[in-house]
Order: sequence, then structure tokens, then C-alpha cells
Amino acid sequence: MSRSINERFKALATDNAPGQEIRQGAADIAGTMVGGQLDSRLVDFSHGDVDAFLPTPGAFEAFDAGVREGGKQAYTEYRGSREIRERVSQRLADFTGASIVGDEQLIITPGTQGALFLAVASTVSSGDKVAIIQPDYFANRKLVEFFDGEIVPVQLGYHEDDKRKGLDLGELEKAFEYGARVFVFSNPNNPTGYVYSLAEIDRIAHLAAKFDATIIVDQLYSRLRYSGVEYTHYRAKAGDTNIVTIMGPSKTESLSGYRLGVAFGCQKIITRMEKLQAIVSLRAAGYSQAVLNTWLDEPDGWIDERIRLHEAIRDNLVSLFQAAGLRTAIPKAGSYLFPELPELTVSPEVFVNLLRVQANVIVTPGSEFSPYTPSSVRLNFSQDHHAAIAAVERIVELVNRYRP
Amino acid sequence: MSRSINERFKALATDNAPGQEIRQGAADIAGTMVGGQLDSRLVDFSHGDVDAFLPTPGAFEAFDAGVREGGKQAYTEYRGSREIRERVSQRLADFTGASIVGDEQLIITPGTQGALFLAVASTVSSGDKVAIIQPDYFANRKLVEFFDGEIVPVQLGYHEDDKRKGLDLGELEKAFEYGARVFVFSNPNNPTGYVYSLAEIDRIAHLAAKFDATIIVDQLYSRLRYSGVEYTHYRAKAGDTNIVTIMGPSKTESLSGYRLGVAFGCQKIITRMEKLQAIVSLRAAGYSQAVLNTWLDEPDGWIDERIRLHEAIRDNLVSLFQAAGLRTAIPKAGSYLFPELPELTVSPEVFVNLLRVQANVIVTPGSEFSPYTPSSVRLNFSQDHHAAIAAVERIVELVNRYRP
Repeated sequence: MSRSINERFKALATDNAPGQEIRQGAADIAGTMVGGQLDSRLVDFSHGDVDAFLPTPGAFEAFDAGVREGGKQAYTEYRGSREIRERVSQRLADFTGASIVGDEQLIITPGTQGALFLAVASTVSSGDKVAIIQPDYFANRKLVEFFDGEIVPVQLGYHEDDKRKGLDLGELEKAFEYGARVFVFSNPNNPTGYVYSLAEIDRIAHLAAKFDATIIVDQLYSRLRYSGVEYTHYRAKAGDTNIVTIMGPSKTESLSGYRLGVAFGCQKIITRMEKLQAIVSLRAAGYSQAVLNTWLDEPDGWIDERIRLHEAIRDNLVSLFQAAGLRTAIPKAGSYLFPELPELTVSPEVFVNLLRVQANVIVTPGSEFSPYTPSSVRLNFSQDHHAAIAAVERIVELVNRYRP
Repeated sequence: MSRSINERFKALATDNAPGQEIRQGAADIAGTMVGGQLDSRLVDFSHGDVDAFLPTPGAFEAFDAGVREGGKQAYTEYRGSREIRERVSQRLADFTGASIVGDEQLIITPGTQGALFLAVASTVSSGDKVAIIQPDYFANRKLVEFFDGEIVPVQLGYHEDDKRKGLDLGELEKAFEYGARVFVFSNPNNPTGYVYSLAEIDRIAHLAAKFDATIIVDQLYSRLRYSGVEYTHYRAKAGDTNIVTIMGPSKTESLSGYRLGVAFGCQKIITRMEKLQAIVSLRAAGYSQAVLNTWLDEPDGWIDERIRLHEAIRDNLVSLFQAAGLRTAIPKAGSYLFPELPELTVSPEVFVNLLRVQANVIVTPGSEFSPYTPSSVRLNFSQDHHAAIAAVERIVELVNRYRP
């Protein structure tokens, strides 16, 4: 195997990726431990707890109906069942505020991860410059690296008291001037819960048009928006020329176990994505596709209640972190918190391992999201409310134990 | 977007791929038609009919149990649930005749297509030379092209009366001498049903060791073997150094709607495949993974009966084609037939479209599998027995209609 492929896979390290902590041992930190175990129920903040926030009503029944459809549902077009694409397109058009031609502009994928992979693979190749927000979802960076693209970082000030608050629009313009022709970002931002303002969206659209750039916007969390937050759908402002929007029911709707996502927008890119899906995984699992029949059509009040419950957890956890002196932005949407650890006697990386081994708490290290956030940790607070509070109390206790 | 990415996606054409025929129009062949419609039930030979050969017993119940497991089953490691990997590894070790360390040597993927994609992506990069059989499953070639590898073709004589019968071992050796360091092949061969002999497997293993080559062997159809056929598992002869074996329950077991596959063998490559899966689709759908609990553990006699029914269809269809003068190899395993069309007044490509429009029969053009088989067509004969016979009779009728 060539040296380049070795390097490529070295860069793809997943040791700290959410859910992979189980593959790490505990032996190497035994000598570092201060104090004993904090006995308690495991809280895995690396992803949401679908036993606390259950899958949307009717999801399993829709899957069952898909199985009973038989071969027609097992072997759909690679881009997914036409009937389901058209149904979901109509609902997504209503949600995002701009029309979608279901048969041409939307593809069903294995999770939003599948959509993101196909979108980047369809627009980025060796040497291409790609603007990436720091911090943002780690796969954005890893995907560009995998296809040998060049990352052009753009900073996001996500704290209320940041001197340069919000997206650094000057830096984004410089990225395009430098040659970036693709810009990938999540809105709401993962891991901070930052929501881009109308002015920011307008400016991105203006720059994208000026530089003829492709925009890939991951709106996975755009349904889970808290009180008083204004949200702007990028495609509603910019049209679908060279735009791909990504969504899916894995998070807010707790349907991750079915692996479903969608990408919609620019017909040319969607067509490429289907060609690629044909050799990557053929299609999203046929029977699972039928679960999308329930999506964006939940019982009255369901989404409001889900938002209300998450907002209550958010408020409790933010208060706990802030009371302990950990700087923590208040997420405007989504279920991630991204608090900063204070100075400790151990590195943040070791502390994250200590949290797992001593406190039965799993979080994701901030270094995954930006080189400038090594002392932050990400928590997905879509958890049992009481368990989440107890786990944050354990984090605070362990922080205090390892203070200098 | 760069020129190279445009070319890359042009090479990824899926217009003739199985299941995509629905995206083709009929208008362009209207002027070519001879005679009227042959009215009858659609038979789609591009894939098996899971309404004729039903999914294995207990599959849906296993999925249901997976859903009831909740979060643990929704969010497995990227390589899949450890418990399920270990269970399946034991059964695959028994089946293939060599042990597998479940936690290190096996990954669960979204279909065998997912396994093939990850295996090629983990071993082939720009400029790498890869030996590919002609004819063989079209994705082998497309995947190598997608990663900018160079294809080094090796011919397979699959007809009983071929002058050079079987794998051209001299050509394979030359491919390795020329610099090929990866060899991808299906056994049983797709689309011909050819099964490699023990002598061929031994020789491949000898050459792989001599040239330090990586072998990716797709054994998707290795359970569906007909009377009197000897089958040699490559890994049982060659050990797991630089070998990846791919299997899955989509075909023989009719479980394609759940999108499940596995790759097993060389630990280093499996580890890379998991890293890549983390950015491609995270994992095979969590709940679907639970369906693997039923795999290779079907009720007594189930597989024998499934083989018996397929063998009966095979024998009928081969007789029909041969009686009409179409040269047709007898598949030793799997459910593909690959008959050759005689000289016709229309091109094979047009004839395939005419079959669909005039005879309600869908087949896959031979040009997908090798540049030397443009006048063959592939049929997946895992169909309702009577419907398959009627459809082949319509193919023969249309062949006769378009003879010069």
C-alpha cells in the first residue's frame, strides 16, 4: 500500500469519536487518578439517549408497513422510493420555505452522515480548497481531508461575550478570495448550538453568488429551536443553485437506529450523489425508508413538547456549569453543550478519560471540533433529565478534584 | 468544480445499473419497435424477487427485538454490535473453515456493497494498479476508477467449451508483475455463476504471497451452491494476511431491505474500514444489525430447500435459452444467468430497452460486466418459477422478432 493511503487513514483517527470510547483501555491513566470512583449510572453524553427521548410515535409501525410492502420497498431506486421522496419533499418545502421537486432534487441516504459524505465527495477533489468553520462538526474536516482537499478555516465566535461575535465574515470572504469554492457548515452549529443570523445568512449567500461557490449546509438540528430564536433557512434566501441542504430524523426524532437522512437542493449535485451512493451502499435500507412517512408529520404538539423538555435540561445544565465557573455558551438550538474546562493538573484529553473511568460520564473532547477548543468538551444533553443533572454534578466534582 | 471531478462522475454512470431502469424514458426507441406489446406481468431480472423467495424466517422478529433493545442497539460501535459480531464470526468461521476474532477481524456494513466500497477505499488510492476479472461485478471496476486506480484486466473463460477455460492464471501473474498489488474478484463469479477450482484458488494464493498483494474476495453467493459443486473458501487456503472476505444476507436470504453485509479478515484493513465507515454512514443501521442474529442459523433444511428451488429454475431457464440457440453457461452457484444474444437488427443496448418496453422484462446489459460481453445479458433468476419461465419465453420471442 502506498504511503499516501497510510497517511490518509492515520488522519482519520476515530479514537475520540462519539461511541468509540469503548475501544479505549483504562490502564494508561491508572497512575494519574486522584480519589476513588463516583459510583453512579453511566451517562453517555457522546450521543442522545433514545431510551429517555423515545423514537417518534408510529416509526416502528411505518417500518413494519415497509416490510409488508415487500420487494417494492426492499429494492427502491438508489435515491430512494419516489413516493416517499415526493411526500418528504413537500413537507421539507413547507419547513424550509422553498419548493423541492421530489423526483429530481432530493436523495434519501443512510443517515445525515451518509448525505454529508456523498455531498462532499460530489463536490471536492484533490487540491480543492474548502472553507470550514472552527468549531464545527468534526466529520466536515475529516471528509475534506479524506478527499485530499485543502481546509481553509473560518472562525466562529459563539460566546455571548466574544469580542468578535458570530461568523467572521471578513475571514470567510478571504477564504473565497484565496480560492475556496465549497463551504460546508452546520446550522445550528455543532457543537455550540449557535444559530446564524439573517444578516449572516444573507452575507454568505452574497459571497457564494459572487464567487460561484457551492454551499453544503447541515441543518440536522434545525427543528429543535428554543424560545425566542429566529432561524433562517439558507436555501430560502439563496435558491438552490449549487446548494445542498442536509437533514434527517436521527436526533430530535430519536430515529438514529433506522439510519435515515436526506439531502436536497441542486439537481446536478443530487444526481452525482446518487451515482456515488450506487457504489457506496446502493441505497438507504429499503424498509427503513418507509419510516420517513412519519417524519415532519408527528402528532400535534409532539415537537413543542420535545423542545420544552430539552430547553428545561439545557437551562439546568448551563446553570450548573456556570455556577461552577465553567464558561458555557447557551445553545439556541440543538442538544449540544460545549463548556470550557478550567486549568487542571491533567490535560483535557486525560481528564476526558478520567471522567469515563472515575465518574461514568462520557463526553467528546473539544479538540475534535477545532484546534482552538482543546479544553472544551461536548455534551449531547438529550438525556434523562435527572441523570443528566447528576452527571454534570459529577463532572463539576471531578473538575474540582483536578484543579491545580 | 474541477474537470477531474466532472470526469470522475461521468465514469460513474448508473443508467444501466440494476433498478435504475425506471429513470429511462421509452420515447427514443419507439421508431425501432417491431410488432406490438407482449402483455404480461413484469419480471425484473435485475434483482431477485423477495416476494417470491421470502426473507429468512424470524428476520422481522429479530429486528423488532433490536428496536426493543433501545439505545444500546441504536448506537453500536461503528463496526457494529460486539455481541452480534462475535456471534456471526463464530458461524462464519465454521462456514469458511478458518477462525475469526470477532472483536478485531469483522465489521458489519450497510450491505455487501458497503463492505466492498470500504475495502477498496482502504486499499486503493490514486495510481494504484488493481487486477479485475472480466467479466465481474461492475462495481469492482467502478470503485477502482472512483479512487483513480488503474485497472489491470484478467480474463475468465466461463463457458464449458471455452478454449481457455477458467481464470487466465498467466494473465493474473502478468498483472502482478506489471505492479498490481490488489486483486478484487467475486467467487462465485457475478454475472456467470463460475466457481473457482481448488487449483485456481491455490494458484491465486501462491501469487498473492509472492507479490505481497491484497485480495478482496466477494463471496456474496457462496451459500447458494448447486449439486455436485466443490467450493473453496479463499481464506481457508491462504490465511487472513492481507485478505478481506465479503459476505451478506441480501441475496440467498432475501434480506436486502435491511441493508446488511460483513467484511472479515485482515485486522489492519478492517480497522481502516471502520475509520472510513465513521465518515461514510457511521454504522449499519443499528436495529437492522440485530437481524444478523438469524443469519447462518436458519431452520433445519431451509438452505437446502432454497438451493433446490433455485436449481430447478436454473435448469428450466438454461434449457429454454439453449433450445432457442442462445449460448448460455450453466451457473454452478448463485442466481445469475448470463446468456448471449445472437446477431440482431438492433444493438444489444436497444434490445434491452425493447425488452423492457415491449415484453415487460428487465435485464442488465452485459457491457456493465466486461467490454467483451456487450451482447450478453444478466438475469437474476431468483424469481417466481412460472413468471421466470414466461419471461424467458418472451425474451426468446423478441430475439426471434429482431433476428436479421
